[in-house]
Amino acid sequence: MNERQTDILIIGAGFAGIAAAKKLHGLNRDFLVVEARERIGGRTLTETFEGDITLDLGAKWLGPTQQLVWEWVYETNAATYETYNTGRNILSYKGKTSHYTGTIPKIGILSLLDLGNAIKQLEKLAATIDTQQPWQHPQAERYDEMTLRTWIRQHTHTEAARHVMEIGIQTVFAAESSEISLLFALFYLRSGDNLETLISITNGAQQTILKEGTQGLLKKVAACFADRIVLQSPVEKIVQDTIGVKAHTAQSIIRAQKCILTVPPALLERIRFEPPLPQQKAQLCQRMPMGAAMKCFAVYNTPFWRKHGLSGQVVSDEFPVKVTFDVGHGDKDYGKMLVFVEGNDARNFIGLPPDMRKQMVLEKLVHFFGKEAAFPIFYTDKCWTEEEWTRGCYVGLMSPNTLTHFGPHLRTPFGNIHFAGTETADRWNGYLDGAIQSGYRAAEEVV
Amino acid sequence: MNERQTDILIIGAGFAGIAAAKKLHGLNRDFLVVEARERIGGRTLTETFEGDITLDLGAKWLGPTQQLVWEWVYETNAATYETYNTGRNILSYKGKTSHYTGTIPKIGILSLLDLGNAIKQLEKLAATIDTQQPWQHPQAERYDEMTLRTWIRQHTHTEAARHVMEIGIQTVFAAESSEISLLFALFYLRSGDNLETLISITNGAQQTILKEGTQGLLKKVAACFADRIVLQSPVEKIVQDTIGVKAHTAQSIIRAQKCILTVPPALLERIRFEPPLPQQKAQLCQRMPMGAAMKCFAVYNTPFWRKHGLSGQVVSDEFPVKVTFDVGHGDKDYGKMLVFVEGNDARNFIGLPPDMRKQMVLEKLVHFFGKEAAFPIFYTDKCWTEEEWTRGCYVGLMSPNTLTHFGPHLRTPFGNIHFAGTETADRWNGYLDGAIQSGYRAAEEVV
Repeated sequence: MNERQTDILIIGAGFAGIAAAKKLHGLNRDFLVVEARERIGGRTLTETFEGDITLDLGAKWLGPTQQLVWEWVYETNAATYETYNTGRNILSYKGKTSHYTGTIPKIGILSLLDLGNAIKQLEKLAATIDTQQPWQHPQAERYDEMTLRTWIRQHTHTEAARHVMEIGIQTVFAAESSEISLLFALFYLRSGDNLETLISITNGAQQTILKEGTQGLLKKVAACFADRIVLQSPVEKIVQDTIGVKAHTAQSIIRAQKCILTVPPALLERIRFEPPLPQQKAQLCQRMPMGAAMKCFAVYNTPFWRKHGLSGQVVSDEFPVKVTFDVGHGDKDYGKMLVFVEGNDARNFIGLPPDMRKQMVLEKLVHFFGKEAAFPIFYTDKCWTEEEWTRGCYVGLMSPNTLTHFGPHLRTPFGNIHFAGTETADRWNGYLDGAIQSGYRAAEEVV
Repeated sequence: MNERQTDILIIGAGFAGIAAAKKLHGLNRDFLVVEARERIGGRTLTETFEGDITLDLGAKWLGPTQQLVWEWVYETNAATYETYNTGRNILSYKGKTSHYTGTIPKIGILSLLDLGNAIKQLEKLAATIDTQQPWQHPQAERYDEMTLRTWIRQHTHTEAARHVMEIGIQTVFAAESSEISLLFALFYLRSGDNLETLISITNGAQQTILKEGTQGLLKKVAACFADRIVLQSPVEKIVQDTIGVKAHTAQSIIRAQKCILTVPPALLERIRFEPPLPQQKAQLCQRMPMGAAMKCFAVYNTPFWRKHGLSGQVVSDEFPVKVTFDVGHGDKDYGKMLVFVEGNDARNFIGLPPDMRKQMVLEKLVHFFGKEAAFPIFYTDKCWTEEEWTRGCYVGLMSPNTLTHFGPHLRTPFGNIHFAGTETADRWNGYLDGAIQSGYRAAEEVV
């Protein structure tokens, strides 16, 4: 058994872990990062296929108010471009296809009013939430005893409005509205400004793309302390005593004064703790299931839909293609069509053979964009529920009764163990920016 | 590293694991049971204090239609007695105390009609559920998109009715009605006959007590294959290949053709699987949080309340004493007062110092039963959320969207790994009887 010593042990080399490391590195503190995977990045993963087709298989976008991640972009001189957002979008609903512009699909006028009203009411509720202590809201218990779907049913009166709202929610949460509590949804929307920001490209959370991908950005940030990152070392056990922690991996025992754990709550108990986690923390970890999202990429020589005046964006009610984005750079880049499959659909779709998945997606793309869509030069897809060290994405969700009664235990340290990860953020929870915030906070706690 | 070989490896020595072992033993098959704890019993734990005060700190009761567990009682000649259920019960509501008989507290006539109507409607819905495939119900999606609390709010019109209903639900599920989906609640009620059975003593799930406790019964059943049970051996890893499984504990590697895993879903991923669990199973395990229950026992020289014509049963709206039972045997036994603290209350209450907990419970008991309650000859309490190898009780619950979309993966084998445990039962799910059913089923699967 190899024994190592460090002042501060960081477990997990995603955005949260690297942010904590960056902060400690800046303060000249002794630290070590251990990571289960053979790579850094966590829920970001940038791969280059066929020589020059760069795709973000995990987290992708940057929004304008995500200041922490933008600081990293400026510091590292990372190149960015804006997500293509010109031309008409496509709505496919009940077998009919129509075109529209803006974020809200062109449904009938009554449905549109209905949808607008429901969104306005949800935004109004979300604006009342204090993201640092959502459980203190005077209506916290009431909002946290029902699912978001129950609320949507109560506040929409047309099927079309409900339907479009559900697709928006699926895209924001990578989950069904029935899986999450209303209070958690309000908190999450508020932590990322509001629903409009979260579903928008321009001025929204899908505005900017990194040329070398989000994992590329992380690698640049981590480059100056790469020698302090140990890969392929899942932590199996953490023993605490009065003077610190001892983390056991298959190869080594690492002694540290403090530990920052960035693992998502749903996976935390995969580590054996001696003494065990406090009961409320342990039960919290049982109550933050990961969402499910699948990203499918069809790559073409050119973004041919742009010539036809189409943005490449689809909102559809048909399995599996519910939402699409054009994520290519300029007109001379490849045509990169990104298809999201979310929630229950994602878990079902990944169960089909890869060839069938490709065929099903392409058939829909042909339906929306014409025959040229039938022959991509490259196709791939990725489902994060299959990743052993993530087991879902984008984020750990809260079903009813969790945020009010377990929320206060999210960030509470356990002896010398401090908790980070985007799930613990009060600003941009679930996003890269939230992960960075959480890493900085945990680093400040241990210093 | 000690290496062992067996045909069938059973992981977990609770009622499910011992039932599987019993079945295999009867068939003369080679098996081995490994258990994380230093004892068998799982969520049953019978302890004798002060020489002769025997208490079930975990699962306690037997109901009349729990045929599988009754077979064990007859086979082992285990002595039983009926739960005391004579005299007046106490309702404490909004500071007022009143007496009543039967299962339904004496609330105002309107509230009573309201309560009766809500219970009737819930029973009617539950009766339509096929417990083997609740996800096939024509209204499965609708019932599974809302919490039970949402349903209760929609179907009760008086505060008192809602309040009494919520206490009943807390007692049945060891959880808040906001934590569970309506569909799961209907399934659970149906799997144990109906709500009335589950909340009743006479002809109900609280009818019979084992003199030597439920763990005592299990020890008798396991006695003839005690040499095949290995304690204090948490399984850390299970590696599967085409010919079988290899289970790693700290001390040994056990090779087997088949494996029966009885660990509750919430704890399953504490074992590292190679290859990893299928994605839908893994996400299911993130979506079955354990309930929380605390049992407090105040033991007196005699059951003095019986002399005053009281049953010892309380239904109250005051923290922490919500529900009590007289669990002593006959008038000459000790007076054994059992206090349940459930759901959110349980997790909060266990956080207080033991002396304060005792004082708070006794104060309430004095309020209900008079000054004699102030001086028990023995007092103890137990919260199952603190148990590292259970992390809650009574059972793994399902929040909305789980039963419909993940339920089919509850019992699906994964290669040579088969799943048991009361959470996988379709009859008496959450009870000892369900655990036995699941063990028998898994044993049949592997044979």
